[in-house]
Amino acid sequence: MRAEIISIGSEITSGQNLDTNCQWLSLRLAELGVSVAFHTTVADDLADNIAAFRIASERVDLVLTTGGLGPTQDDLTREVLASVAGVPLHEDAQSLAHIRAMFAARNREMPERNRVQALMPAGSEVLFNARGTAPGVWMKINRAYFAAMPGVPSEMFTMFTEQVVPRMRAAGLLGQGSVILQRKINCFGAGESVIEEKVLDLTRRGHVPEVGITVSDAVISLRIFGRGPTQADALAQIAPVEATIRQRLGDLVYGVDDEELQQVVERLLRQRGLTLATAESVTGGLVAHRLTSVPGASEVFRGGIVAYTNPAKVQLLGVPAALIETHGAVSSQVAEAMAQGARQRLGSDLAVSTTGLAGPGTEGEKPVGLVYVGLAWAEGVRSLAINWGGTRAEILSRSAKSALNAVRLFLLNG
Amino acid sequence: MRAEIISIGSEITSGQNLDTNCQWLSLRLAELGVSVAFHTTVADDLADNIAAFRIASERVDLVLTTGGLGPTQDDLTREVLASVAGVPLHEDAQSLAHIRAMFAARNREMPERNRVQALMPAGSEVLFNARGTAPGVWMKINRAYFAAMPGVPSEMFTMFTEQVVPRMRAAGLLGQGSVILQRKINCFGAGESVIEEKVLDLTRRGHVPEVGITVSDAVISLRIFGRGPTQADALAQIAPVEATIRQRLGDLVYGVDDEELQQVVERLLRQRGLTLATAESVTGGLVAHRLTSVPGASEVFRGGIVAYTNPAKVQLLGVPAALIETHGAVSSQVAEAMAQGARQRLGSDLAVSTTGLAGPGTEGEKPVGLVYVGLAWAEGVRSLAINWGGTRAEILSRSAKSALNAVRLFLLNG
Repeated sequence: MRAEIISIGSEITSGQNLDTNCQWLSLRLAELGVSVAFHTTVADDLADNIAAFRIASERVDLVLTTGGLGPTQDDLTREVLASVAGVPLHEDAQSLAHIRAMFAARNREMPERNRVQALMPAGSEVLFNARGTAPGVWMKINRAYFAAMPGVPSEMFTMFTEQVVPRMRAAGLLGQGSVILQRKINCFGAGESVIEEKVLDLTRRGHVPEVGITVSDAVISLRIFGRGPTQADALAQIAPVEATIRQRLGDLVYGVDDEELQQVVERLLRQRGLTLATAESVTGGLVAHRLTSVPGASEVFRGGIVAYTNPAKVQLLGVPAALIETHGAVSSQVAEAMAQGARQRLGSDLAVSTTGLAGPGTEGEKPVGLVYVGLAWAEGVRSLAINWGGTRAEILSRSAKSALNAVRLFLLNG
Repeated sequence: MRAEIISIGSEITSGQNLDTNCQWLSLRLAELGVSVAFHTTVADDLADNIAAFRIASERVDLVLTTGGLGPTQDDLTREVLASVAGVPLHEDAQSLAHIRAMFAARNREMPERNRVQALMPAGSEVLFNARGTAPGVWMKINRAYFAAMPGVPSEMFTMFTEQVVPRMRAAGLLGQGSVILQRKINCFGAGESVIEEKVLDLTRRGHVPEVGITVSDAVISLRIFGRGPTQADALAQIAPVEATIRQRLGDLVYGVDDEELQQVVERLLRQRGLTLATAESVTGGLVAHRLTSVPGASEVFRGGIVAYTNPAKVQLLGVPAALIETHGAVSSQVAEAMAQGARQRLGSDLAVSTTGLAGPGTEGEKPVGLVYVGLAWAEGVRSLAINWGGTRAEILSRSAKSALNAVRLFLLNG
């Protein structure tokens, strides 16, 4: 059982866009025990698409394609499938009704061009698109089952999970090989080499299970790869290594898999029945944005103030002007006063603040990357200083993580 | 002149790593006037590699490969090239000396395994590796020139620039054809099919220059691909089409290439000597974050208030509680009151607000995706309603763009 993923679009072959759909599908197939032999990306060219689909139909058992299902003249996938299978296209009435309904739900009439999205190769099955207009296509050509999905990530994710996986199971394409499961242990608050030193015996080549270490935006992740004939076997290989890592790294570990700091912070706030507010200077709303990206945030997040200028710090947060005058806006004193101001004005149990320099310009002698995080609670206030490296965008993102991590550590340890 | 890029490694086909080498090479080739027809990624499997290299050798003129040149048993590229070309491997004395010297420079002895890195297919040329041990390979097989490079990005970048590009030029693979330049025209405020209908004659197949249409996070981009013997020729091909597009789409066009709405908003504010404040409910700080991601934002952005809960709207923005009671927090009335409150409290010339439902849950009869954007200025206030589809994250991102776009249109048209 081997699979190939075909991504369609000149925006990928030209280097304009990075192909993240392909990575997502590869990870899902690995979890399902299906090994991916090839990724192919092809520009929006009819002859090249036909060639790529034909090659895939002869060398693997499953082909997942993304893109080329839109309403425009560049969208060739329907035509390509029909051509490689040697069948005509026909209009699918149910798909057409769905497309019209999607437009109607947004109070718009369906443009005539979108009608082509209802064309299906004869003998194929419609893959229902719960999140968009373009239906997908499921059909067998030569040796391979094809699942043609849209390129829009959210549409593709849902269609793969709800429509393609059940058909893979029904076609006997699952569960023949060995399962590979990944467990990602996410850490924040120390550098890669500090963390690696604590787990050197686990990350060496040949260790079973394999443990890899990756860094992304100041989060250090340890990935444990469990393998076995069943999911249970793969999980049993992972569990003891995860326990060892957690024991050695303590509260540097904040979560697993795709868990983010803001989710952990909100869970801890909910468990303790506490609320949070934010006062942001350097991070300019990013801490609040991350907190509100979690559904249900309003139960624990009261709101925030983005006080990007000194007058805003004084007027909206009640930071004494003299404090800014004496210590500068980028100082532990101002960070603490900002957190206290936000806590008072928003009536929350806790408040966290940020003030710092993200560059490109500096302010006096303070270096770019210097950030203070303030934390205020009923009985007190404190702050910490961090020196982040990187671009402006990286400093902003990492500073927001430092703020969230400060809240996490307070909720865990006081 | 068509090229293919082959990336080698199970860490890519399994989804562990994202293939950024491929994107980098695609962008460089476009600048050199070479069009990329295919990307292929293949796992560390001998038969699959041989098949992929053979297909490429027959369908394009240039093949750039990355990976598979290390010293381990997984590294198959040397063997694959020799097999597809039908030639033996021999040890290259100069490459071996270089590998030994690289180890010596780090005070280490060369492990015996690294010796395989000096093996070269008969009739090939060595591509010197200035940054690592693995030499690359340059050779012609069937119709195509192959450049096999290491997978380590820094090694690959240097080898491509210093070793491969001069050989491409010498082999006549450059400059026969033409330079390809891209111009991206970014639009916001209408759907893909509405925009395409206005430029159907330009996006049809065979139009010169080629015009493609892509959508990313509710931004519709028209890409014009100019081709010509020189950069000036390519630009001359683009200019009249860009003018036509701008004339037809009017203020739906907000910028070009990588320009983002927040950059345009800040430029317009600066030109007009005006300041802005934000009042965010549904977008939870994302509008402020986007504005402050632009360096120098503090000159035009006063700050913002994230009023995620009803009490925060009343206390921090002065929204009358009765207004929320009567119309609901998600209403044009509350959006307008929020904008007025932010403008007053932050002392800005303009203020923009958002209130809406991003899901997953709903509030009464109002649908997920319904968002009101309010805009207040010295003489007045107004609002608009938008229905966004998509996931929670998509609704948040698109709503933030709607808010920025409302400011842009006000600054342009009043």
